[in-house]
Amino acid sequence: MVRRQIGRRRAPLVEGLKSASASRGRMDRFQDRLAASAERAGSWLCVGIDPDPDQFPAGLGAEDTMEWSLGVVEAVGDVACAVKPNAAFFEALGRIGHEALEELVARMPPGLPVILDGKRNDIGHTAHKYAEAAFDELGADAVTVTPYLGRDTVAPFAEYEDRGVFLLARTSNPSAKDFQDLPVDAAGTPLYQHVARKAMEWNAQWRNLGLVAGATYPDELTVLRTLCGDGVPLLLPGVGAQGADPKETMRRGADTSGRFAVVNVGRAVLYADAGEGWRDTVRAHAQRFAASLSSPRS
Amino acid sequence: MVRRQIGRRRAPLVEGLKSASASRGRMDRFQDRLAASAERAGSWLCVGIDPDPDQFPAGLGAEDTMEWSLGVVEAVGDVACAVKPNAAFFEALGRIGHEALEELVARMPPGLPVILDGKRNDIGHTAHKYAEAAFDELGADAVTVTPYLGRDTVAPFAEYEDRGVFLLARTSNPSAKDFQDLPVDAAGTPLYQHVARKAMEWNAQWRNLGLVAGATYPDELTVLRTLCGDGVPLLLPGVGAQGADPKETMRRGADTSGRFAVVNVGRAVLYADAGEGWRDTVRAHAQRFAASLSSPRS
Repeated sequence: MVRRQIGRRRAPLVEGLKSASASRGRMDRFQDRLAASAERAGSWLCVGIDPDPDQFPAGLGAEDTMEWSLGVVEAVGDVACAVKPNAAFFEALGRIGHEALEELVARMPPGLPVILDGKRNDIGHTAHKYAEAAFDELGADAVTVTPYLGRDTVAPFAEYEDRGVFLLARTSNPSAKDFQDLPVDAAGTPLYQHVARKAMEWNAQWRNLGLVAGATYPDELTVLRTLCGDGVPLLLPGVGAQGADPKETMRRGADTSGRFAVVNVGRAVLYADAGEGWRDTVRAHAQRFAASLSSPRS
Repeated sequence: MVRRQIGRRRAPLVEGLKSASASRGRMDRFQDRLAASAERAGSWLCVGIDPDPDQFPAGLGAEDTMEWSLGVVEAVGDVACAVKPNAAFFEALGRIGHEALEELVARMPPGLPVILDGKRNDIGHTAHKYAEAAFDELGADAVTVTPYLGRDTVAPFAEYEDRGVFLLARTSNPSAKDFQDLPVDAAGTPLYQHVARKAMEWNAQWRNLGLVAGATYPDELTVLRTLCGDGVPLLLPGVGAQGADPKETMRRGADTSGRFAVVNVGRAVLYADAGEGWRDTVRAHAQRFAASLSSPRS
């Protein structure tokens, strides 16, 4: 299988990032690129790219999804450690969305990692195709993956050594408890912790797994960070529209070096202003969140 | 939310199916359309549409994905009860794949249900977008959905009353056991059975859920059919390249009326012949599987 170089097809979008990346050279591991990006940005803010034409600023419609998406990245690129395009929002727009996502990733500055949030997975042969789609075809730096199907379905993603894989552990929604909290052994270990433990066992081999942990469940987040130890990235949705506190999320989610709590904010950054000055408002909101999401020990 | 009529954008591909559908009129529930299609075909064979250009017949390449896919549907349409495009294989082809999938579903005969195998899911707001993408934008009759995130993430799919939702219970891969077999109560009930029970509780409200159960695990399949009772469709991968026996799968998977065991075959039908006569070979293989997959009680 061809291992595509990160950065193929990419043209500069944020000028400062281009030179930073060029001077830093290519780094092999996703975690290293992520940490370098957070250091550059001075923050662990990840901005979710969730294009919803019903919420676009006045004058923009579905056909402007690419323009809107690129505008968001330009506005937040220097204060965010990563961006997280949400595959569902692009898919719901059909061909327009598909082309916008391709173009967005193609034009992303190499210094700003792209986490494709698709929560895909399937049995082995098909999982390979999903990995190919995300990594080779689209060029994402990392993906989110559902764990329900077990190890042999995570492998096709994790075997891309220079990419990252965030396995869902505890999600941020109310029904997360339906299955994720079920006790799976005599000690009463909930499923989400078992998933995290298994992931860390597998990670002894792969070394590029992270976890998704909803910031809306702070106690579970603390447990997950303890289980993972240092250097493992946690992707943390739930801050912003879902109401979790940024500083508290950072404190609980970061490792002992104060790093690797990748705190995602979507709607609260994207859709605060429907007027002509929307880019400035997006930037101002991103800056405000970014300031709350610097490394607690830096 | 707009509830798109099944059949928008569809043009006839298999003539016999067009008239069958027209004379039958529109049916509201996915299960009814599926059962009618199985009766027409005389079989519960579902053909997986997994376009892999590396395995295409000589002379066809990635750019011919649409032609190949349409050729498969034309070859199998009158002996299959449904087709199951596998989203991963289309995604891995980028824009070509996206357009081929759109065109394939748009041209599918209304009498032949399309089960979009995407195994998507996400928290509520995003799950709505995935449902929109599959049902409104693409026009699928049913989807496969991952259960790990719980009830509120299944709801956005299930609330499309005229579509079907196959929730993953026990998958067909070796690592299925990693999480799906974990005991989740004092009685030792494995997770996959708990998922199935929950799904059937929810189904009292929605009435359009089915389950995915790997035919490679016959005992688990028998348990799942018992848990579901009559009238609930089971989507059964594992026959063909994965080695499960068609008749045995049908016997265990069908309900007491001999119906609703939707047995998927992909590679073993699609890629047996790389020569010019590939359409005839696809058809012959589909017919052979179809003959083993008639209702055991009909």
